[in-house]
Amino acid sequence: MTPLTKKYFLKLPPASDDDKTPDLERVLAGLRCEEVNVGPVPVSVIRKLLWALRESNFEITATVDFSGGPELIDVEPGRRLDNNLGLAVDLGTTNIVCSLVDLNNVPEAGLSASETNPQTAIGEDILARIHHCLKPPEAGRPAGLEELQLAAVNCINALAEKLAGNAGVSANDISCACISGNTTMAHLFLGLDPYNICRAPYVPAANRFGVFKAKELGLNIKPEAQVVVLPNVGSYVGGDVLAGILASGMADRDGISILVDVGTNAEIIVGNKDWLVACAGAAGPALEGGVVSSGMRAAPGAIDRIKIDVNYEPSFTVIGNESPVGMCGSALIDLLSELFRTGLIDGRGKFIPGKTGRVVETEWGLAYSVADNIVFTEKDIENLIRTKAAMYTALTVVTAEIGITFNEIESFFVAGTFGEYIAADKAVSVGMLPDIPLNKFKLLGNSSLKGAVLALLDLEAIGKIEKIASLITYKELNASAEFMSLYRAAMFLPHTDSSLFPSAYKS
Amino acid sequence: MTPLTKKYFLKLPPASDDDKTPDLERVLAGLRCEEVNVGPVPVSVIRKLLWALRESNFEITATVDFSGGPELIDVEPGRRLDNNLGLAVDLGTTNIVCSLVDLNNVPEAGLSASETNPQTAIGEDILARIHHCLKPPEAGRPAGLEELQLAAVNCINALAEKLAGNAGVSANDISCACISGNTTMAHLFLGLDPYNICRAPYVPAANRFGVFKAKELGLNIKPEAQVVVLPNVGSYVGGDVLAGILASGMADRDGISILVDVGTNAEIIVGNKDWLVACAGAAGPALEGGVVSSGMRAAPGAIDRIKIDVNYEPSFTVIGNESPVGMCGSALIDLLSELFRTGLIDGRGKFIPGKTGRVVETEWGLAYSVADNIVFTEKDIENLIRTKAAMYTALTVVTAEIGITFNEIESFFVAGTFGEYIAADKAVSVGMLPDIPLNKFKLLGNSSLKGAVLALLDLEAIGKIEKIASLITYKELNASAEFMSLYRAAMFLPHTDSSLFPSAYKS
Repeated sequence: MTPLTKKYFLKLPPASDDDKTPDLERVLAGLRCEEVNVGPVPVSVIRKLLWALRESNFEITATVDFSGGPELIDVEPGRRLDNNLGLAVDLGTTNIVCSLVDLNNVPEAGLSASETNPQTAIGEDILARIHHCLKPPEAGRPAGLEELQLAAVNCINALAEKLAGNAGVSANDISCACISGNTTMAHLFLGLDPYNICRAPYVPAANRFGVFKAKELGLNIKPEAQVVVLPNVGSYVGGDVLAGILASGMADRDGISILVDVGTNAEIIVGNKDWLVACAGAAGPALEGGVVSSGMRAAPGAIDRIKIDVNYEPSFTVIGNESPVGMCGSALIDLLSELFRTGLIDGRGKFIPGKTGRVVETEWGLAYSVADNIVFTEKDIENLIRTKAAMYTALTVVTAEIGITFNEIESFFVAGTFGEYIAADKAVSVGMLPDIPLNKFKLLGNSSLKGAVLALLDLEAIGKIEKIASLITYKELNASAEFMSLYRAAMFLPHTDSSLFPSAYKS
Repeated sequence: MTPLTKKYFLKLPPASDDDKTPDLERVLAGLRCEEVNVGPVPVSVIRKLLWALRESNFEITATVDFSGGPELIDVEPGRRLDNNLGLAVDLGTTNIVCSLVDLNNVPEAGLSASETNPQTAIGEDILARIHHCLKPPEAGRPAGLEELQLAAVNCINALAEKLAGNAGVSANDISCACISGNTTMAHLFLGLDPYNICRAPYVPAANRFGVFKAKELGLNIKPEAQVVVLPNVGSYVGGDVLAGILASGMADRDGISILVDVGTNAEIIVGNKDWLVACAGAAGPALEGGVVSSGMRAAPGAIDRIKIDVNYEPSFTVIGNESPVGMCGSALIDLLSELFRTGLIDGRGKFIPGKTGRVVETEWGLAYSVADNIVFTEKDIENLIRTKAAMYTALTVVTAEIGITFNEIESFFVAGTFGEYIAADKAVSVGMLPDIPLNKFKLLGNSSLKGAVLALLDLEAIGKIEKIASLITYKELNASAEFMSLYRAAMFLPHTDSSLFPSAYKS
């Protein structure tokens, strides 16, 4: 594996009357001895050479980027081979998650940190943000597009600085970055007007963005660091999806896999190494905590796992072992499944009263009380059933259109923030995921972030992502009469057609 | 010839439901139809695509730079094939001269403008400027190096704006630039500390600088324009010399040529297509107007040609047909020659009084009065004789060390601001240039600027310059006992050894 950047310690012969090689040519010769032929050197790096060489008797550490042509992006005096770091960024519509990756050590998992995407304060959803881009600048506020761009960049900078601080390094030690986001998020990050993404014929500014200098994008990492923005496939399939496919490995396999990524949108990918079909629908918000009263994202304080015992009392685990403040997506699925299993709700998600004092009357109707200030209302259940029904219907329609059955699926990847914690059996039991052998389910977690990490760790990963992009066909999931009919049939726990969920009905 | 940048008019198919190619990929496909495969596109250009395409029904003009890999550096709506301009810059220690070059039409000479290098106000000579770079920033003043860099860049910007205005275009129409200067000037322009250029072992930061974005260097031309800074060969042979050699064509020839470039320093190059020897000495200031009381650079108001008639009265021509305010180098040589020919001065440059009222007593001693407030004093003559003696001695020493005689020289190129106007016969008659057949002398004018123009007009020129750089051997002209002895012998008009100047003694 060749990471995007490497560091080289060069012990160079000092300049002398017998060797008047200029500083730059001396360093380039040293790199050639390491079999690295770099292209044009940025002027900011040439400016540093004189004192870097002479502070350390011509022993320096050179950082070389391989994402474009090989490029010398920094020199430091002395031996500084450690701290060759990359920044992986999952640039989500709702959340931004960054991970610091040690490119020398190829670790399983680096430090991560996340923050609500500050763009949500400007425009809640993607459409609102695209429209916001039309706003001209006003006193004290830049133009809409620039405002959104700065919001994302500043948030990433804050996360990078925090991660670097936690790791005991400087953000300037970060020598490359990879941004994985949907098409609109990538456009906004680059300051590209997403105007046409939501207007026929839905043409993005670019699919393959390429690499850009950190300093040019306002990222406060190594100024000459290259920032890879993962490509997208049209307006609806973003780099985050391609990154997820990469992380799953499904495009390397002969057998057919499904990847479901539940974020603000639910994306479904079906395929193998020869073909890939992608489709998306606005199915996800309930699972990211936006639509359910006590919902929250999977962060410290979130209940992530719930059981209900024979006395209808809940027991749960909380992320970070803190006092519970809400429930993340996996807990919502757990709870829905448990309420149904214990008979506290019926197949339509309505409470059957009188069984336990845990079922309480609230201003939003009947609800199950999980803990102080954490309740799960019939309205929440209804939203969750809509979400799961939309997901199951989408899966049904896509596989039917492709002409395969769920039984032909070799692996079923569940990704998204919620996918890190979800219990597949519970998701099956409420009819969200199809009733296939549980060992076929693989939880990927944040596959967009994982794909970005892989792209930092291995140059070939970017080539793979481009191959994946070329294989993808996008299918629009129209709200056709057939879809709506299937959707209505799925608005039941687990489903109106019991033959589809034999294991659920068996238990 | 392939100029550094070309413009392409692209009539692209508009985006439609049947053709959802993104904007960027659409433009790249259009360029591929023109057999241009550009590399990564700057984000600032991608940002312009959406509206450029839609302002003009997908008919745009693309500007492509070929100095690096082919790069798309600008897009404009509609057909704008004209105004493909380059900026050639002779970045001299004393003067900065810019020329606007029409890259479509390959003109003989473009618009030019020049200005005193504002760095002279900070440090008169190169050494003073190198020392100034050590100054830390103070309130209201940036650090010394930055101050010098800004001075040069601002001057070039002003000249570019002036030239663009004169041509009825915008500086933003300038899509490439080539900077030709000596090693220190190139360093200062790039913000590279020239500290070691004047300190043993005299190692520059770089010989081959490469190309840099205009916006990165602060040049206010097309922001993504590439700026080529011509390479140097060590601390003493700059890109201006290499440009001069290119402009002369001497490195293409079998026969041996000499190139003398008289600027602030006098550079001498001897050689042919197989070898080149370069040496330099501080011989020039008198000819640029710095050391002679009525001297000035070759600008409007400068006397450029003088004769003295039988009544010892002067007649002269003035650049721009203005009232004379001083004399440029060619006039100084003319005048020295004429004063000697008419017997007003003797071989040591001393006035023989009593012949004409034109020879007057001034506070600086005896002087020849050319016009109101324009006198040529014995002190001036002494300085000029020093200059010409240094030049002739250097030529003698260099050719002797190489082992050739002046008679073996096929072409003798005279360059430098002063070389545009000099009368070779006069320069021979005072013993500045060797007494060879006059038809061997070729006046090049500003060969540094001419080389920069050639580099803009033809990509191959830069390759040629690098070949020239590889051929050059630098010879130091030490003030050895032999040199000093030859120098003293040359401190006479035309020379103490009359056998060296048979044609002068004959006339």
